[in-house]
Amino acid sequence: MRCDKVWRDARLATMAGDGMGLIEQGLVAATDGVIVYAGAAAEAPELDPAETIHCDGRWMTPGLIDCHTHLIHAGDRAREFEMRLDGASYEAIARAGGGIVSTMRATREASEDELVAGALPRLDALIAEGVTTVEIKSGYGLDTASEIRMLRAARRLGGKRPVQIATTFLGAHALPPEYAADPDGYIALLVEEMLPKIARLGLADAVDAFCEGIGFSTAQTGRVFDAAQRAGLPVKLHAEQLTNQHGAALAAKYRALSADHLEYLDNAGIAAMAAAGTVATLLPGAYYFIRETHLPPIDALRLAGVPIALATDCNPGTSPLTSLLLTMNMGATLFHLTVAECLAGVTRNAAQALGLTDRIGTLEAGKRCDLAIWDVERPAELVYRMGYNPLHARIWSGR
Amino acid sequence: MRCDKVWRDARLATMAGDGMGLIEQGLVAATDGVIVYAGAAAEAPELDPAETIHCDGRWMTPGLIDCHTHLIHAGDRAREFEMRLDGASYEAIARAGGGIVSTMRATREASEDELVAGALPRLDALIAEGVTTVEIKSGYGLDTASEIRMLRAARRLGGKRPVQIATTFLGAHALPPEYAADPDGYIALLVEEMLPKIARLGLADAVDAFCEGIGFSTAQTGRVFDAAQRAGLPVKLHAEQLTNQHGAALAAKYRALSADHLEYLDNAGIAAMAAAGTVATLLPGAYYFIRETHLPPIDALRLAGVPIALATDCNPGTSPLTSLLLTMNMGATLFHLTVAECLAGVTRNAAQALGLTDRIGTLEAGKRCDLAIWDVERPAELVYRMGYNPLHARIWSGR
Ligand SMILES: [Zn+2]
Ligand SMILES: [Zn+2]
Repeated sequence: MRCDKVWRDARLATMAGDGMGLIEQGLVAATDGVIVYAGAAAEAPELDPAETIHCDGRWMTPGLIDCHTHLIHAGDRAREFEMRLDGASYEAIARAGGGIVSTMRATREASEDELVAGALPRLDALIAEGVTTVEIKSGYGLDTASEIRMLRAARRLGGKRPVQIATTFLGAHALPPEYAADPDGYIALLVEEMLPKIARLGLADAVDAFCEGIGFSTAQTGRVFDAAQRAGLPVKLHAEQLTNQHGAALAAKYRALSADHLEYLDNAGIAAMAAAGTVATLLPGAYYFIRETHLPPIDALRLAGVPIALATDCNPGTSPLTSLLLTMNMGATLFHLTVAECLAGVTRNAAQALGLTDRIGTLEAGKRCDLAIWDVERPAELVYRMGYNPLHARIWSGR
Repeated sequence: MRCDKVWRDARLATMAGDGMGLIEQGLVAATDGVIVYAGAAAEAPELDPAETIHCDGRWMTPGLIDCHTHLIHAGDRAREFEMRLDGASYEAIARAGGGIVSTMRATREASEDELVAGALPRLDALIAEGVTTVEIKSGYGLDTASEIRMLRAARRLGGKRPVQIATTFLGAHALPPEYAADPDGYIALLVEEMLPKIARLGLADAVDAFCEGIGFSTAQTGRVFDAAQRAGLPVKLHAEQLTNQHGAALAAKYRALSADHLEYLDNAGIAAMAAAGTVATLLPGAYYFIRETHLPPIDALRLAGVPIALATDCNPGTSPLTSLLLTMNMGATLFHLTVAECLAGVTRNAAQALGLTDRIGTLEAGKRCDLAIWDVERPAELVYRMGYNPLHARIWSGR
């Protein structure tokens, strides 16, 4: 078989099937940026590659996927973080201009170029650890023009670096101050103007909302989801992070790609997610950063067969985290996930959470050739270490 | 004043005095690798530097200090980590060759060159975040020749990279299997042979022990400390990590530089440490990794005026952590330390924990010119972010 490239002498964690798909003596072959063979060297077809890369027995995984981020935003919240540690009250921080509204103000004031420039170092930190696909949400603009600007900036990142960007419209992230007295009015604006326009412009791959006591109700979320369905866009949901709002069950009703956070998810929500094929995207960085102590129902999710993804939730307020390796360590340490579950959470299941199972997430023929090659003795090392990056090489789309 | 170099247009966190010593328009001047002026530009003497570096308003801190590591070791414990997550019992892990004895075996089998080569990537990870001084303990050799080999390897790292290595003899880290029935016999070997020889060779800057139910008793620790005093070496102690053994009070009696871990420290221990000027070195990476839930007595330490240092405790069994920035975030998030406390913990107070207050830890005239220059808007960002390295430049000894 003629092909462009072959990576030989690799140990593979293909992540195909249920477990890690470990292969001690493996190879991957690609043509036109697509894998044509990935598996045991002994079972490979005869290959005639234009280029051969020797991996010297290094471990190879699929390129990592960060399936839940708020990477595009202006400003940081380090001052607020500092004040809180100094003992300042929530009110004092709000008076000093803290909270999500401060991020909204900074983001509204930022140009598209500034949003791109501000996000690039965060994207580069992810890429440096072998990430090849990143989901990015809007949700700090909270008016039509600013939400569009955020999504355009997110799309532009994909032209700046060798990485796939999946965009999500999260207009229902928070209530902008101008609608403080009229949340339903804001939802009407979102449903009648923002979402249709963004869909028409092709700026969003999915639609998300923050369903929470301090966010939007299930009724409001349902209106957003209805509008998404009319526009032909799949949905996701920030659900059950701080309280049980039964958001996951609602999301499942709309066959959501994923429900995310889920600390306060109940059995009915789990059953609904399992029936709908909705991925549980867990965000241990936010759990850690806000000092949450209520664990998501990991055992029940496992029992029900709900696929578990892990993501950074990179955002300035509750998870200023730009390491998917550290996210895996937190998944193991804080959420007691196994090594196999952590790795599936940032590959196979993260792909499913983005509706991209047919294109990425495993090392299999037909998938895009996104590879991460690691200087480790075993895949467990990727989860075990903290603050250490053993990436040897990263390949996106065969290059 | 003639000098070698001036760093102009910097914002300084000098860490001199009690707080962060913030100076908005500052400069640092150095000659022969030593700071000759650090402070407000407006109050600087007339300077005639051979070289001027413009910092463009970036923040500058002292080079960071990791004052408690086990950086020299062979093997990793990722397999054990994986087994534990898969639900394996402690016994099953021990049968599979896990635990500290596995690290001892690998370290005994490793040559000095192998120990150096194995530690370099970990050292490089620290250095990449602006670390300029690293303490390294022995304690996986547990026989005279292997302990000496570990300390020689540690010293050699200082010739491989621009960094100061402070070495600590930790022969009383664990009981080697050949002394399993005779702990006092091992202490006798340590006190009569290992420690005097290591001191004579000049291989240790301090002496440490693991005082714990599963480690050594206070009586045994006292014998180690007596031997250290005879050899003219200062002492430190792994104290009160898992239970209260009253080790910190013992350490204070010997005017220990630091007592480390301290989750189960009591008020008597705190008072003794305060009276003796012993630093409390907290190790949040180990707290996190072993899922400890009992916090060290931070408020009482503050009230008593005990200086608090923070360190990675980098080791394969309980803290495979090579990021001092993440350590600060854990100090704030898990231990509720303020930003100023976190930064003092990896600079001024870490220097004190190594007995190096006169040489490093602050930006002040007379200190070695160890600088870290950061792409951040405020020092709080160094603590706030997770898995992000904003280092712009690092200077060790003026270069
Ligand atoms: Zn989110
Ligand atoms: Zn230690």
